[in-house]
Amino acid sequence: MWQSSAAAGRLLLCSGRSWLQLRGYSSTVISGKTVEDGVLSSFRSICGEDGVSLGQAVREQHGKDESVHRCCPPDVVVFPRCVEEVSALARVCHSHRLPIIPFGTGTGLEGGVGAVKGGVCFSLRKMDAVLDLHPEDFDVTVEPGVTRKALNAYLRDTGLWFPVDPGADASLCGMAATSASGTNAVRYGTMRENVLNLEVVLADGSVLHTAGKGRRPRKTAAGYNLTNLLVGSEGTLGIITKTTLRLYGVPEATASAVCSFPSVQAAVDSTVQVLQAGVPIARIEFLDDVMIDACNRFSSLNYPVTPTLFLEFHGSERSLEEQVSTTEEITQSNGGADFQWARDAETRSRLWKARHDAWYASLALRPGCPIAGHVGDGNFHCVMVVNPDDPDELHRVHLFTQRLARRALAMDGTCTGEHGVGLGKRSLLCEEMGDPAMRAMQSVKEALDPLNLMNPGKVLQPGGPGDAQQLFLHLD
Amino acid sequence: MWQSSAAAGRLLLCSGRSWLQLRGYSSTVISGKTVEDGVLSSFRSICGEDGVSLGQAVREQHGKDESVHRCCPPDVVVFPRCVEEVSALARVCHSHRLPIIPFGTGTGLEGGVGAVKGGVCFSLRKMDAVLDLHPEDFDVTVEPGVTRKALNAYLRDTGLWFPVDPGADASLCGMAATSASGTNAVRYGTMRENVLNLEVVLADGSVLHTAGKGRRPRKTAAGYNLTNLLVGSEGTLGIITKTTLRLYGVPEATASAVCSFPSVQAAVDSTVQVLQAGVPIARIEFLDDVMIDACNRFSSLNYPVTPTLFLEFHGSERSLEEQVSTTEEITQSNGGADFQWARDAETRSRLWKARHDAWYASLALRPGCPIAGHVGDGNFHCVMVVNPDDPDELHRVHLFTQRLARRALAMDGTCTGEHGVGLGKRSLLCEEMGDPAMRAMQSVKEALDPLNLMNPGKVLQPGGPGDAQQLFLHLD
Repeated sequence: MWQSSAAAGRLLLCSGRSWLQLRGYSSTVISGKTVEDGVLSSFRSICGEDGVSLGQAVREQHGKDESVHRCCPPDVVVFPRCVEEVSALARVCHSHRLPIIPFGTGTGLEGGVGAVKGGVCFSLRKMDAVLDLHPEDFDVTVEPGVTRKALNAYLRDTGLWFPVDPGADASLCGMAATSASGTNAVRYGTMRENVLNLEVVLADGSVLHTAGKGRRPRKTAAGYNLTNLLVGSEGTLGIITKTTLRLYGVPEATASAVCSFPSVQAAVDSTVQVLQAGVPIARIEFLDDVMIDACNRFSSLNYPVTPTLFLEFHGSERSLEEQVSTTEEITQSNGGADFQWARDAETRSRLWKARHDAWYASLALRPGCPIAGHVGDGNFHCVMVVNPDDPDELHRVHLFTQRLARRALAMDGTCTGEHGVGLGKRSLLCEEMGDPAMRAMQSVKEALDPLNLMNPGKVLQPGGPGDAQQLFLHLD
Repeated sequence: MWQSSAAAGRLLLCSGRSWLQLRGYSSTVISGKTVEDGVLSSFRSICGEDGVSLGQAVREQHGKDESVHRCCPPDVVVFPRCVEEVSALARVCHSHRLPIIPFGTGTGLEGGVGAVKGGVCFSLRKMDAVLDLHPEDFDVTVEPGVTRKALNAYLRDTGLWFPVDPGADASLCGMAATSASGTNAVRYGTMRENVLNLEVVLADGSVLHTAGKGRRPRKTAAGYNLTNLLVGSEGTLGIITKTTLRLYGVPEATASAVCSFPSVQAAVDSTVQVLQAGVPIARIEFLDDVMIDACNRFSSLNYPVTPTLFLEFHGSERSLEEQVSTTEEITQSNGGADFQWARDAETRSRLWKARHDAWYASLALRPGCPIAGHVGDGNFHCVMVVNPDDPDELHRVHLFTQRLARRALAMDGTCTGEHGVGLGKRSLLCEEMGDPAMRAMQSVKEALDPLNLMNPGKVLQPGGPGDAQQLFLHLD
């Protein structure tokens, strides 16, 4: 199965798998060179006997994310326990010209963790401390093993929370690396707006703090924005070993709502008008009729089988009333019907059950093409259920993906509203950005990773200058 | 006069002039090489006879911003009318190794426009079109001659506005280049959060679109974030020739308030609690007792001479009531007194007069050191009134600036919450960032501007690799 996405007003393709491209690429993949015994001894001396694994199961587990991209196991998996170990391991890799692939929770959707050129997977799960919580300044620093759910559990009694929610219980450093967002980005922004500082180990083992060591400025104009250069770099510029995050006060109250519409356009118009009216909506999610039908069947619900918006409001008790009534008026003026809303947790959870189960509902659907979208961002997912063993079907899906992405691009949009580029979107990225921007990205990559050791083969097209160098290094 | 800044909870130094450093540097400045006649002919053939100026008055006007940094006039000022002319001019500069200094409105505060190595000033004021307004998508694209006030006048009947407000009526592309923010960043973010795409001419004349040509994605995860690499690059990576901006709905209603406090701490505590309570405050500004006294005298007001908060609320009529009452409760619990608020424009304007006149009030004050701060961001300005002809006084001010900045750094803060680095903050930037981050910035600079032609001598320290190269090119 793959998913993809487009938008309200214009189209944003989110996550399409480029099958042919992937297959074409795999024929040029160089099988991982055997890691020498001396290298393994060095790794073991750095992070202990149980910090280095060559086992096939472990390597395969670390060569694949949650997408359909085929598994590319690394030659070895290392489990560092601190930034000093990450740095020491990177120095060994650097001196032996071994690719480095950072691994968080493996919940990505663009094949970002596959070791397409072999090399060493850095699994960061042992580094799982929450550090330096500053409630009065609304910030916290976490190591890469800390997931968003673990952080929010840690924060439970502080009155604070971290809102970026891509669905999966991803690691926060991995979310920074892939510029994750999700359902409530419309209110709280994505990782781009919520990372204050990053500790990064570069390919040569040097340790960089993108906003200076230990700093956590809420606002700064201090030199080039290295923080946002690393956010979304997908492991191709360095290994993120610490992330300092902006926190938010837990809202006093929450309300959820659901509303059915006679057409996609009516739902989209309602969304635009709700935003224009300045309603500080926390989530506004769209499911089309096919998706609603699948959810009804999967979750035993009985929503009208029409385009539907799922909404969530955060605020004080008083402000919620106003947000909900303004929104209801707008939906009614667009022909919306069956507007239901609730404040108590149980009813809210029931109202949103269809949206939460959408992923699994679509897995149970075959064939079909439902659409689910974070319409507040102009971003939607188009979910297609495919048989990965049917090459003809995969080919047709690939052609459809390309068409969908190009339609998004033709409407001033992007081929990837979220989920990143990874393996699957590299050629579309070139179409989206154009040559000068791609050259700039290549030169930034070469500036920070001149040997192309950091997660090689991702984001940038094979055949770029960095990639050629990598081939050279492997062949000589 | 100079200003500087620090913060609530921690200290953020904002804009300190490093006098000694500036003077030390000026002794190594190479006087601008004479621009050859052939180069001038090329310039004239590109942008016309009246598009090239060698006049002393014009050059001096373009060699200085609104700071105390001494005027460094360029050798020549060019006035391109479109991106093609900017690109053609840049190619000429590139082939003759002439420095390029972009110039917007000259309202910067860190000496960013001085031609410290001579060269060609690109005044962009003739490119003043507002392009591609998309009200339904909340975005607009502007050329570099469009100022924020001009854009908001253009938007007047659309129900939309652009909120970032650094005080001066700066050009929006200049605001992007310097990562400007200002009083309502606490609600709407800075330029970092509000630029969707940039058209940039690089030193070699190539034209780059940081998010792809014509694109305006509200949310994207497409490759390296070139947009935010260019935002805040202060003309050292390229010339911004178009900016696509995020717009907001004009709030249904606005309320302003003023409140006096027994201590700085009580005002700061109130600010933190207002933010913790989730009040979506639009502006929250702090003036200390010295500043209030100066404002009282300058604007014939009679505020109590104590630390004071100026607040502004945006929202619906109903939500304003709640925001104001929550805020008043919080200020009272911290000993705040004389809480006054108003909705009508005239009274609001009267309430905020002191804050709006603060800059001029402090100019009229001598001697003294008032403090004004965007406390919602943890960012404050410390304004000192100095006699620029008194070297001893300047020396003492310099020492104070350094102490203030280092105290901000010791509290995990930044030496420049806004206004950028320019000339004045280069050595402090190195202290703040540390060697690995400075090396990364240098390598990014070299990647995009290998000849160090773009606004040389700014942001990065002289003596860096790029700078050495520039010296070489000038001397050979």
